[in-house]
Amino acid sequence: MASCPFCSGLEERTPPEVFAIREPGSPTNGPGWQVRVVPNKFPLLRIEGHLDRRTEGLYQVMQGIGAHEVIIETPEHSLCLSDLDTAQLVKVFQAYRERLLDLRRDKRFRYLQIFKNHGVEAGAPVPHSHSQLIALPITPPVLKTELNACRNHFREHERCLICDLIAQEQADGRRIVYNDDRFLVVTPYASASPFEMRLFPRQHSHDFALQNDDELGDFAVALRSTLLKLRSLLRDPPFNFILHTAPPAHPRPGLPDYWNSLTNDYHWHLELVPRLNRIAGFEWGSGLHINPMPPEDAARHMRNTDPSSGL
Amino acid sequence: MASCPFCSGLEERTPPEVFAIREPGSPTNGPGWQVRVVPNKFPLLRIEGHLDRRTEGLYQVMQGIGAHEVIIETPEHSLCLSDLDTAQLVKVFQAYRERLLDLRRDKRFRYLQIFKNHGVEAGAPVPHSHSQLIALPITPPVLKTELNACRNHFREHERCLICDLIAQEQADGRRIVYNDDRFLVVTPYASASPFEMRLFPRQHSHDFALQNDDELGDFAVALRSTLLKLRSLLRDPPFNFILHTAPPAHPRPGLPDYWNSLTNDYHWHLELVPRLNRIAGFEWGSGLHINPMPPEDAARHMRNTDPSSGL
Repeated sequence: MASCPFCSGLEERTPPEVFAIREPGSPTNGPGWQVRVVPNKFPLLRIEGHLDRRTEGLYQVMQGIGAHEVIIETPEHSLCLSDLDTAQLVKVFQAYRERLLDLRRDKRFRYLQIFKNHGVEAGAPVPHSHSQLIALPITPPVLKTELNACRNHFREHERCLICDLIAQEQADGRRIVYNDDRFLVVTPYASASPFEMRLFPRQHSHDFALQNDDELGDFAVALRSTLLKLRSLLRDPPFNFILHTAPPAHPRPGLPDYWNSLTNDYHWHLELVPRLNRIAGFEWGSGLHINPMPPEDAARHMRNTDPSSGL
Repeated sequence: MASCPFCSGLEERTPPEVFAIREPGSPTNGPGWQVRVVPNKFPLLRIEGHLDRRTEGLYQVMQGIGAHEVIIETPEHSLCLSDLDTAQLVKVFQAYRERLLDLRRDKRFRYLQIFKNHGVEAGAPVPHSHSQLIALPITPPVLKTELNACRNHFREHERCLICDLIAQEQADGRRIVYNDDRFLVVTPYASASPFEMRLFPRQHSHDFALQNDDELGDFAVALRSTLLKLRSLLRDPPFNFILHTAPPAHPRPGLPDYWNSLTNDYHWHLELVPRLNRIAGFEWGSGLHINPMPPEDAARHMRNTDPSSGL
């Protein structure tokens, strides 16, 4: 589109690219790319400076240090993520992987959060298909809760909590949306919102950035099928997805087993949340959610949908 | 309005009232009331049954036992909460108090959550002014975090965390919205959303239900001023408020000091949240919130607004 800064041909309207997958010989910051990563022009956190952790009386303060990047998923303005073929989705995931590997070298960052907003109601005012990466100087509360639960389960049982969860969902079957020998997609038990889903790799791995191209291909097949079914069933609903992966590992003095423990006690996955309901006083005040769609029914509807009907 | 079940004259359209403040001699479930409390016709939780706590493999289950009531704040269809005078607001708060005192006799309930949704965007599809009470069989996560923080602070320092917070905000001054010798209204430090506010009684008390009518009157003056300013400044924004008060106290064997400790380590207050921003992938995935309006600026805007301009 003539005025869209994410379109091919208008590369000068974004900050200079930090990564791109492009045709051999095509110029950096020029056309010829398939996936392009640029710093956000309006970043939530800034890369320069010191954390300057301190207290102000009862409060904890630090500077807003971090990184905020945009992964432009296609040069085509009119395509959305579910329009892309699996080869192009693999390129998007390769961009995620490269940025995770690069940014984890900065020891100020405790977590690298990759997420996507699709549709205005899901927080995507720019229509050109893109995801975002935010490097954070703290472990975000949602991840901290999840990491602690996984670590406690591993310490108690010497098994990965998410591997156990995958086995239980497989045996139960009622919440399965998609199932091949590489990936399991389920609607989580007692999920907070309608048609919420999780995509789990069957192969235990704590770290998305360690996946090889074959594994990214398996992920692309599972995600594409899920997105096409969702688009067909709910008529292209707004959605968010969030990649859950282990924090950058920083082995520290006094924690010699940190790295080894981390590789066993976490299991990367993708959380996919259609934005169909509203947060009101009860949800905000309690942290509890009201979901009128039982996940068992949502999974059945998804299973009965043909992914090709979403094309 | 002709078809509104919360209007005076249509009392038969709601379930029978569980409490009302009404003119002497006026008939139960007939006109003549100023505030009326009825069970929600479409309750989120049901009062009959047993909790039946159990596990299903990795998951925790219990029945959806509880209560869900509607507090109709005025018989007048066209009035909203900020239109009510302080005498009528006191009647609303008296209804809150009576329902808290009654429902806490049911030992299955761990928390009694009172909240209000104002405006469609804040989750109030029914325009007739009302609040809601939900009795829960668990302590909701948001409250649990807050209660634990207060308890830990008290154990460490033998002081109430919220009394300390009030003192710090008073000394700082930048986040004060309203200030008299009974109530302090502040925009919380590093608040999650624009124009979020907290109303704190200066007098330490853990339990809203123990407030006398004079104290409810002081609360009404503070809330009315705050709501009128908000309405004027942001042109009647959608908002939620949530009452934070101590859980029903159940002294148990082995916890002889439970009650005494509880009265010192919690401090009731009201949380007021205009619904001005959207939850997207980053917020959902991290539990962190992006607030483009610094609370210090929001407080200054509120201080500079005349409450009578909201009338």
